[in-house]
Amino acid sequence: MNTIEQWQKNEFTFQGPTTGNPFVDVDFFAILQHENERRTVRGFYDGDGTYVFRFMADVVGTWSYTTQSNVAQLDHQHGQFEVVAATGNNHGPVVVYNRTSFRYADGSPYMPIGTTAYAWAFQPESVQEDTLNTLEANEFNKVRMTVFPKFYNYNTAEPQSYPYVGTQTPSDHPFTFDDWEVAPDQIHFDFEKFNPKYFQHLEQRIAQLDQLGIQADLILFHPYDHWGFARMGHDANMRYIKYIVARLASYKNVWWSLANEYDLMAMYDQIQLGEWDEIGQMVHQEDPSNHLLSIHNFYDVPRHQLNTSNWYDYSKPWITHLSLQNYSLYMAVQWQNDYQKPVIFDECRYEGNIEMGWGDMSAEDLVDSFWKLMAHGAYATHGETYLDRPNTDRPIWWAHGGQLHGESYKRINFLADLFAKNQLSDVEPIGIQTADWELYAGQSRDQSHVVIYFGTSQPRFENLPFLASGKQYTAQLVNTWNMTITDFEPVLDQSKWFEMPAGKYQALLLTVKGGDRHGSEGE
Amino acid sequence: MNTIEQWQKNEFTFQGPTTGNPFVDVDFFAILQHENERRTVRGFYDGDGTYVFRFMADVVGTWSYTTQSNVAQLDHQHGQFEVVAATGNNHGPVVVYNRTSFRYADGSPYMPIGTTAYAWAFQPESVQEDTLNTLEANEFNKVRMTVFPKFYNYNTAEPQSYPYVGTQTPSDHPFTFDDWEVAPDQIHFDFEKFNPKYFQHLEQRIAQLDQLGIQADLILFHPYDHWGFARMGHDANMRYIKYIVARLASYKNVWWSLANEYDLMAMYDQIQLGEWDEIGQMVHQEDPSNHLLSIHNFYDVPRHQLNTSNWYDYSKPWITHLSLQNYSLYMAVQWQNDYQKPVIFDECRYEGNIEMGWGDMSAEDLVDSFWKLMAHGAYATHGETYLDRPNTDRPIWWAHGGQLHGESYKRINFLADLFAKNQLSDVEPIGIQTADWELYAGQSRDQSHVVIYFGTSQPRFENLPFLASGKQYTAQLVNTWNMTITDFEPVLDQSKWFEMPAGKYQALLLTVKGGDRHGSEGE
Repeated sequence: MNTIEQWQKNEFTFQGPTTGNPFVDVDFFAILQHENERRTVRGFYDGDGTYVFRFMADVVGTWSYTTQSNVAQLDHQHGQFEVVAATGNNHGPVVVYNRTSFRYADGSPYMPIGTTAYAWAFQPESVQEDTLNTLEANEFNKVRMTVFPKFYNYNTAEPQSYPYVGTQTPSDHPFTFDDWEVAPDQIHFDFEKFNPKYFQHLEQRIAQLDQLGIQADLILFHPYDHWGFARMGHDANMRYIKYIVARLASYKNVWWSLANEYDLMAMYDQIQLGEWDEIGQMVHQEDPSNHLLSIHNFYDVPRHQLNTSNWYDYSKPWITHLSLQNYSLYMAVQWQNDYQKPVIFDECRYEGNIEMGWGDMSAEDLVDSFWKLMAHGAYATHGETYLDRPNTDRPIWWAHGGQLHGESYKRINFLADLFAKNQLSDVEPIGIQTADWELYAGQSRDQSHVVIYFGTSQPRFENLPFLASGKQYTAQLVNTWNMTITDFEPVLDQSKWFEMPAGKYQALLLTVKGGDRHGSEGE
Repeated sequence: MNTIEQWQKNEFTFQGPTTGNPFVDVDFFAILQHENERRTVRGFYDGDGTYVFRFMADVVGTWSYTTQSNVAQLDHQHGQFEVVAATGNNHGPVVVYNRTSFRYADGSPYMPIGTTAYAWAFQPESVQEDTLNTLEANEFNKVRMTVFPKFYNYNTAEPQSYPYVGTQTPSDHPFTFDDWEVAPDQIHFDFEKFNPKYFQHLEQRIAQLDQLGIQADLILFHPYDHWGFARMGHDANMRYIKYIVARLASYKNVWWSLANEYDLMAMYDQIQLGEWDEIGQMVHQEDPSNHLLSIHNFYDVPRHQLNTSNWYDYSKPWITHLSLQNYSLYMAVQWQNDYQKPVIFDECRYEGNIEMGWGDMSAEDLVDSFWKLMAHGAYATHGETYLDRPNTDRPIWWAHGGQLHGESYKRINFLADLFAKNQLSDVEPIGIQTADWELYAGQSRDQSHVVIYFGTSQPRFENLPFLASGKQYTAQLVNTWNMTITDFEPVLDQSKWFEMPAGKYQALLLTVKGGDRHGSEGE
């Protein structure tokens, strides 16, 4: 009997028909049972007469399965397998915790330290290897990445293979936004025929990320397209959702991002705003493992002079967290309160120097954004957009992966390490009423640790009236840019006034005296 | 016959009763006429049996007056005076121009370069002299200042005199916000009896500002009070408005600011939100010269998670411009459009290092705010809050005036000079749709000059599709922090891509080729 760890992908392979169009003609499901647990998972056609279903069991013990199909060969197949407890670095999928935070399914701490390399899996092999090496060498534990290839400025090379049967002539002109306006007679793919090799490759990359402890925040649709994948029509969209969820829901490190900049897709007449409810519900319904699920906007609230009613409604029950493009960092706490869900600023501009306003941010400003959000128990996502000149061939991390050339990632490593070592993976904001200018404060949910970030503010002295009453705290002064941590006198409490050294990008890290059960900096 | 320049204060003095309470008992008005012009101005009692009316004529020619009073001695007094054209630096009052900008009444350019020294006129004499010297040495042309003395942290000394008859025991304890909660039996002033000497002194300071070409943005009420001036009651408030407008409306450099942080006054049960309409209408009605008039908030939209319906309604017809406390600089354009009035961020945090979040901003950030707002045709106001230690006795510019110790004012001088020399005193925002991230662009209303500010953004190359079609521009690169201006190649136009040097706080200043009628940097 097949034995597998809890939360690992278990795969069952069957042979079936190769005639007709198996992607459309064959229905194939498995019913999985363990005591009172019962799950239905969709199988998929993997080419060459091979049919597969995959399952990630969340409960230890003996499971059995029975298949159902409209093809006799695939129907009423039975089997059993044994699920054993997770070991080593297998902590299971990431789940929402304490309403606005995350952790692993086994209870281990997890806070997203995201980066962005949208189309890294479709670059030349050596660039993909660089990407994996870069990720391994740094603290990022979530990557935003697309399922489909990407066509955009700096992204006009054709991928090595395509998700559907068909082919595309490379573009013969510099990118313009008109390239996204693909007319029906310019589409050369058969949206009823997936290309299994494309998805097998993607899966290999997702598995490698999982081995590195990195979540794959998978973007199912996006507007950066000249193939037609962004405008396949409703039936093909639904077929695609069923197929991708069947293939990938068993990877424990997968998050579903319904789209990047979904509101741009409506502008380009690709997917209309009204279709996202159905797409989101379909992903949720097809996924037996309830992976994290969100959708990412283009228009910025309130900067684009919009309010949140212009957003996709993040209060929908299938949405697990907010995955925002937003630059108003102080709004994080309001949105935590409004939606009672985790808030990730999945794009708060990228460090770099391209010509687009979202990609010419200084390293200092991006690190500053990370600290402001994380001190409030929200999260930021990194991206890097350095280039040497227009239309450079050099990989740009934001889209291609490869190597990092900036300065922010080093400080983000430092921050991630500091928060992890100080029980700050589950932070709740504090002091919102009293500290409503440029001071960002939060505490670990058990109140053992407090972080206060000052940004570019330079108070000569300070007090922290929002600290818990009756508690005393030892303190460390953090220079978030220089990456130094020094002991800070005096012991602090709710009423103490204390002097602050001059300087920018400073933070205080407090540990409650007598209350530190985890052996970091307390007494 | 008395001869006076247009827009200068003309003062007429009469002797009247000293018995009873002249401030309450005596009604005294003057009707002024010139051809079809007819104005009514209120006179006021200046002590020692002296009654005064003042008038600032805006039309050249022979004017006549007749007084009206319920006291025979002051009734039916007649006279004439001759108003001649303004000379020298007399440009008249500042008025709204092109909906969202300002200029002088004679058509000369004026853009507010404000600073804040709330209670400077009530400090020791030497500090007041320092303040005037500092203002003379710099480019500030508007000062926010209070009519009443100020009681707050760092502001607990008693003033040298009081606006009303009475006296106050100095505070014997460090400031707390409870000090603003003045019970009726703690008020030791007679709100029916003004102290003319207090106002004579204030007028002297306003006149000195006028000589320096500086607007006095006079704050009529504020919450920072332990005397009771913030809670005199409705009748006394109205009497005060009539008195202060009678005294000061003839100073051409006066702007009325109904209150500082009027919404805090409601929180402290001083003046309720519902009373401001009547106060504003009363100022407007009493003022024969229609000085600029606004009101200044405390709560920040949207940072305090409020929308503009929580503001005083700046669309009211007696409000001439928005005088905001706000940190969301990108909202300036929306509010210009919403209200069709000039937008001044009269508090966007102060450079300094006090313990309050509004007063611990870096110099870089304040200069950055000035550039962002002014590139969009809005305005910022400076303030400085440096101190050495808690409860220092050293004057802090923000409240006391004195001397400047910071770094932002030098860059604001540079900016003011640069804008003035490049016909940028009346800027309209451009490129809002295409440049919606961190690029702030505006042009002179005649389209001869364009300013583009990049803040901390660092694009390696750039284009400016929002430039006027068919025009070519010579360019200069401005380092707004280092205060350097260097010629920039190439000639720019709507379609040109060009390289930008690395660096922060850069701006481009463009002059249309063949279109520069004013002889600055164009051909």
